[in-house]
Amino acid sequence: MQIEVPIPKALERKYPEPVVLVVSVSKDGKPNAMAVGWYCIVSYEPFMFAVCIDSEAYTYQLIQETGDFVVAFPSEKQAKETLFLGTHHGHKLDKIERCKLKLSPASKIKSPLVADAVANFECVKEMIYQPGNCPIIIGKVVAAHINSDTKLQRLYTVAKNYKLSGVVPAR
Amino acid sequence: MQIEVPIPKALERKYPEPVVLVVSVSKDGKPNAMAVGWYCIVSYEPFMFAVCIDSEAYTYQLIQETGDFVVAFPSEKQAKETLFLGTHHGHKLDKIERCKLKLSPASKIKSPLVADAVANFECVKEMIYQPGNCPIIIGKVVAAHINSDTKLQRLYTVAKNYKLSGVVPAR
Repeated sequence: MQIEVPIPKALERKYPEPVVLVVSVSKDGKPNAMAVGWYCIVSYEPFMFAVCIDSEAYTYQLIQETGDFVVAFPSEKQAKETLFLGTHHGHKLDKIERCKLKLSPASKIKSPLVADAVANFECVKEMIYQPGNCPIIIGKVVAAHINSDTKLQRLYTVAKNYKLSGVVPAR
Repeated sequence: MQIEVPIPKALERKYPEPVVLVVSVSKDGKPNAMAVGWYCIVSYEPFMFAVCIDSEAYTYQLIQETGDFVVAFPSEKQAKETLFLGTHHGHKLDKIERCKLKLSPASKIKSPLVADAVANFECVKEMIYQPGNCPIIIGKVVAAHINSDTKLQRLYTVAKNYKLSGVVPAR
């Protein structure tokens, strides 16, 4: 039976939810990354990702400057780094250095890959929509990469308050 | 280490991925539902969902006609119904009747709720974007509901070829 509740209460039922890292780079080559839960595939031909990023975020500013970004699937082993990247601001500190996130060069864009992620998608910014209080950045995927360790699992937010873990099928 | 691969190959690393049902209704009150994997929260104030639905889909036509839809989180017990709703066309048959999906009235819109889902969000269509080959329908949430059984888990696509299951944290 369904019970009507306030929207935030119903949203507590959305977990586990996969999380991605969005990696960007400044004009002078300094990388940044943030954790994003609001993302989605939005086209298959061409292949496109949508990522929702607040216009105040440093990542938003960098994507506007350089025009590209990487969508990475962090692995279940990267919970600590992902939590750090999702709860600190790149305006104020070098998040990549502080959490020792290992990066590697992309093949077609300036933003780098997350070396130990499950997969990485190189994206070129195509357009930005804003239906509500958050911009939706649309990126066309121009290259994709997977980890050579194909046993690695993705990372999920498994409960509110940023509780992160891998998940396995229930049965 | 990252290895460059074709995009579809990298996408195989995205699972498990939560799936939603999008419920709509015709002008004469006949409901329809489809399974959607490409969806995303895109605004918190007002609260909005984006759902990517092909313009050929019967659901797309119904949302255009009546202007509202429900985003439901199917439960892990609804794998069979969700698979059916995701692999058949509403143009051709009464999918709701065929899979015996139990519905219940929404409080503010015409499209009905999924009675046994984990949660339901009543959405009013706000706008449609199309960055690539698939329309993105933006819905403003006007009411939310949860199942009285709060132990119910959501349903996920756990592998390619529509393998569906609940998931649990890995550790």
